[in-house]
Amino acid sequence: MGAQRAPYLEDIPLDEALERWWRGLAEAGALEPLPGERVPLWEAVGRVTASPVWAKLSEPHYHASAVDGYAVRAEDTVGATETSPKRLRIGPDAVYVDTGDPLPEGMNAVIMLEHVQLLRDLPGTGDFTHIEIIQPIAPWKNVRLMGEDIVVSQLIVPVNHRLRPQDVGAIAGAGHDSVIVRRRPRVAILPTGTELVPPGAPVQPGDIIEFNSLVLAGLVQSCGGQATRLDPLPDDLRLIREAVEHALEHHDLVIVNAGSSAGSEDYTAQVVQELGTLFAHGVAVRPGHPIVLGTARGKAILGAPGFPVAAALSFDLFARPLLYRLQGLTPPARPRTHAVLTRKVLSPIGEDEFLRVTLGRVGSRIVATPLKRGSSIVMSLVLADGIVRIPRFSEGIHAGQDVDVELLIPPEEVDKTVVMTGSHDLTIDLLKDALQREQKERRLISTNVGSLSGLMALQRDEAHMAGSHLLDEATGEYNIPYVRKHIPGRKIVVLGFVYRDQGLIVAPGNPKNIRTLEDLTREDVQFVNRQRGAGTRVLLDYELKKRGINPRHIRGYRRIEYTHLAVAAAVKSGAADVGLGILAAARALGLDFIPLFRERYDLIIPWEYYESDILAPVLDILHSDRFREAVEALGGYDTSIMGKVIAVIEGEDEGR
Amino acid sequence: MGAQRAPYLEDIPLDEALERWWRGLAEAGALEPLPGERVPLWEAVGRVTASPVWAKLSEPHYHASAVDGYAVRAEDTVGATETSPKRLRIGPDAVYVDTGDPLPEGMNAVIMLEHVQLLRDLPGTGDFTHIEIIQPIAPWKNVRLMGEDIVVSQLIVPVNHRLRPQDVGAIAGAGHDSVIVRRRPRVAILPTGTELVPPGAPVQPGDIIEFNSLVLAGLVQSCGGQATRLDPLPDDLRLIREAVEHALEHHDLVIVNAGSSAGSEDYTAQVVQELGTLFAHGVAVRPGHPIVLGTARGKAILGAPGFPVAAALSFDLFARPLLYRLQGLTPPARPRTHAVLTRKVLSPIGEDEFLRVTLGRVGSRIVATPLKRGSSIVMSLVLADGIVRIPRFSEGIHAGQDVDVELLIPPEEVDKTVVMTGSHDLTIDLLKDALQREQKERRLISTNVGSLSGLMALQRDEAHMAGSHLLDEATGEYNIPYVRKHIPGRKIVVLGFVYRDQGLIVAPGNPKNIRTLEDLTREDVQFVNRQRGAGTRVLLDYELKKRGINPRHIRGYRRIEYTHLAVAAAVKSGAADVGLGILAAARALGLDFIPLFRERYDLIIPWEYYESDILAPVLDILHSDRFREAVEALGGYDTSIMGKVIAVIEGEDEGR
Repeated sequence: MGAQRAPYLEDIPLDEALERWWRGLAEAGALEPLPGERVPLWEAVGRVTASPVWAKLSEPHYHASAVDGYAVRAEDTVGATETSPKRLRIGPDAVYVDTGDPLPEGMNAVIMLEHVQLLRDLPGTGDFTHIEIIQPIAPWKNVRLMGEDIVVSQLIVPVNHRLRPQDVGAIAGAGHDSVIVRRRPRVAILPTGTELVPPGAPVQPGDIIEFNSLVLAGLVQSCGGQATRLDPLPDDLRLIREAVEHALEHHDLVIVNAGSSAGSEDYTAQVVQELGTLFAHGVAVRPGHPIVLGTARGKAILGAPGFPVAAALSFDLFARPLLYRLQGLTPPARPRTHAVLTRKVLSPIGEDEFLRVTLGRVGSRIVATPLKRGSSIVMSLVLADGIVRIPRFSEGIHAGQDVDVELLIPPEEVDKTVVMTGSHDLTIDLLKDALQREQKERRLISTNVGSLSGLMALQRDEAHMAGSHLLDEATGEYNIPYVRKHIPGRKIVVLGFVYRDQGLIVAPGNPKNIRTLEDLTREDVQFVNRQRGAGTRVLLDYELKKRGINPRHIRGYRRIEYTHLAVAAAVKSGAADVGLGILAAARALGLDFIPLFRERYDLIIPWEYYESDILAPVLDILHSDRFREAVEALGGYDTSIMGKVIAVIEGEDEGR
Repeated sequence: MGAQRAPYLEDIPLDEALERWWRGLAEAGALEPLPGERVPLWEAVGRVTASPVWAKLSEPHYHASAVDGYAVRAEDTVGATETSPKRLRIGPDAVYVDTGDPLPEGMNAVIMLEHVQLLRDLPGTGDFTHIEIIQPIAPWKNVRLMGEDIVVSQLIVPVNHRLRPQDVGAIAGAGHDSVIVRRRPRVAILPTGTELVPPGAPVQPGDIIEFNSLVLAGLVQSCGGQATRLDPLPDDLRLIREAVEHALEHHDLVIVNAGSSAGSEDYTAQVVQELGTLFAHGVAVRPGHPIVLGTARGKAILGAPGFPVAAALSFDLFARPLLYRLQGLTPPARPRTHAVLTRKVLSPIGEDEFLRVTLGRVGSRIVATPLKRGSSIVMSLVLADGIVRIPRFSEGIHAGQDVDVELLIPPEEVDKTVVMTGSHDLTIDLLKDALQREQKERRLISTNVGSLSGLMALQRDEAHMAGSHLLDEATGEYNIPYVRKHIPGRKIVVLGFVYRDQGLIVAPGNPKNIRTLEDLTREDVQFVNRQRGAGTRVLLDYELKKRGINPRHIRGYRRIEYTHLAVAAAVKSGAADVGLGILAAARALGLDFIPLFRERYDLIIPWEYYESDILAPVLDILHSDRFREAVEALGGYDTSIMGKVIAVIEGEDEGR
């Protein structure tokens, strides 16, 4: 038990950490481009030249006919006209050649087959004996002269050049059958942690699925390196030191994953110190912090944090540029764009933060929505379209501020993005998948902020559509009164999506026998709520009020989650006994469901987007049987209103 | 001998050819996305999902401590302050947990180690028995709730998604150890041609080095496909038909390379017709034309032309989108840019031409310089930075016209490009290689237009520098008078580069005993000249005039080549007996050299570029010993003036 060890971790600014990394590795001789190795051309695409390639042979290496026709001496053709054609004897004065055939000795031009008349000595019998031509031909016409394409000794590709298919073709054409390329950088990845289990294994609480090595190995390969995933080791100083020492013999970089912090079982820094030189232990980046940088045996060592987002960032900052440099390359710059941040982000002074965002073009702007910022959230790596860097002297970014974004997706993807916000529903995942399945050239990104916040996002023109199931207390009507109130001045379509059952999500078998909203006030019942502005929360409050139930009497009323699945997860884990949500969420986690209400979930869409190309593929899918069947199959859904226009609300000025 | 067969080749517009290709393949069932296959996660990066991946497990799959510290019940901490701290018993009320440990039963928050005081029952001896805290903690603080990252049943990645390293990590975190991905498209590449020899083999005139299959296989792989390079076949209808028939059994696309025209030994169209359906034979694209499109056995067949540029273009137009489609993807769009074309390009009406260009930013504009347009010029594939499409209803593009360019290099490369023009010298290849070797983040592109045209290009601001060796007849001075005359109004630096020997390039052993310029007028001597405006041409004319030699008496005076190496190649091939050029060119081709003159070759650089970041790395290299030694090693060069400013010519208005 490590409560005894004093945690010690520096917090070196990123600039300085990078400076130490490059200087330290240079001093250790760990930055020299890797040596060359000869590979056959068919294995060379994607590799990097270790020396320039000069032509050994000209291309073509002989004078070649560029057409099918008759090779002649140009001087023999002088004077030919339509009225006085010239005849040349096949054999001594005209020789048939196919495209690519060498020009026969003494010939210096080729007349295309279409431009000759073939004649016989004795008309009607025997082989052709002459050609007749009606115009002269210039010397070297229709001839590919030796060296027209490549001349011996010419540079084909320089050193430090990543070979593309066409380069390899030209190298072959220039007389080579192999090429000297840099050895691939070799990277050992050592997962450490007593709690690690392999992917797919049955898990117990406390077990951590070891997938960082998969991610890191993939990243190594994407940089042109060769990754070796070593067997995971328990937290044991001696074992880890031995494994690192051994890996250093055969690899250019050793990445030790986890154990890079200063906890009771964090040995990476100590191992580096014992084997070589520690440059830094702790870097002031977010997500990141516990990063170990060092060298031993003339090789680089990176101690990457255990949380996946921090591990990926530490790779990107330190390993990626190293792997390129070892190949004699600089890492390709990622494209950048400007975007408007939708939410305020506070960031501590003193840390360089790398904020992952989703991106989509809404109207004339690109909107960037921050993803969950935890270093443990692997889905933020999956969903990120770009990274916004918040420098260490900044306290954060205001909502609506213009930011510079490093793109992780091709720039054109941003323009193919449907931006959805508002309330969460499980069918949105089905919609995302359907768009990809139908190859509609659209992708859907969604943020779950609740129905009301979704409407406000539309008002700020930050999304193309919002999911909403807001019940108006006064009229009992869904969504329309809210749209009128919260999105004044815009013409809006309220488009039917689904009716769905809302009810109580409880543990399997409903052990506490919770049946009604009244049961929520029982002393033995722990509730989990949704956030303010969520349609489910509005529904709950409406129904509580109708029944005269005081929310203060509900234990857990103030504990909130942001999605149906998160509510179900809280019940599943025992953190709560009950929550209000949808059947599909209960089903997904094997929980019981007591249906109470049926509500309407609509898509709220500004008219200009409803009519636009960007949403057309989404509307197509809403009308497809395949998609409706998939939604109904989830259970608790009725798709009878899907794709139907429920109302078109003309925008009015707020003042009117 | 195929002179007997009437050539027949359609010339279908590209639009229609594409339409026939897609419709025909759809009807043949050859467009369906490929079936799925299960692969372990460590082989999944780069593959494309054949079905969506849903979470089987939540992440975390238990409530996990997010820090190192003591797990407690939050309600036990209510009321703790600095003045009245609370004590909790280690064991029943506070349990030490490391980051990632499961929260013990009944606990609902974790207090960070830094925020507790450890106490003993008996001060100074034994284990710690209590923790003391001075503030309360909120429920679930420092806890990663089950499902915080991923909730069971959530979509991880949709179908038709190319898996990145992070996706594979998330899929593992969501409880999977494998994933269903589309089988890779399988492509058979069949080279045909009796004249083919493998790369590296000794060559005779008429032998063609078979490298198209290397290029095509590389392109297949870059699209995510699996290529099989079949053994080359001679031009034999039966053999080719058998090989195609066999390949169709195991591949999704069969590419027959060459034999796609309508010559005596072109069998591809016939093979397609005999085995299945021929969609098109001949497409009006340039370079291209003899392209065969068809289907058999429910698979696609592409007959690609034999010339490498045409083969690559036919792949790009027809095979690339097919391979993406078979994987359930659309091909990524290439970035585009606008540029100014430096040279007029005529293009026949009725053909869609794909013109390859080099690109570099000069001043505020991107300049696009057309590469050699022949379909046989493999170096145009290597050197191309972009493609300009000239539509079939256009007759071409004017010099100076703005064009839309599809980029083949990353956009940022354009800004790192040093654009050189003017006279050719072999040392320019050394300079290109040195820039890559020193990792200067610059690449040099050069066009050989001759010294005088180079100065005019500077005047039009189409290049950063020009190589020049123009001798002024009146003063005997190099370059400076020409700069004054041809680049008025710009401040120009004349920078020394090399002195080099110019002389007669003759066959080995100098069989015709050519020694002087006077010998060029001999009846048995065939000369090869350089183009007007080339420094070597100016030198020749100057020296001929001095000697009173009439150029008309020189056989071959009007036959021109554009580089020293091309002149040497003409001599090497026997097409000419002698040319004027530099030692290095003669040496490169194993020819003899009779030195006649010593000339100065300068770099002419507008002042603004001389002072700019873009050229700084080039100037660095001119001052490096390593580069100078490499130049001197070529022979015939003197680098004593390299990098020295010979003159700074202040720009004057033309009028003054």
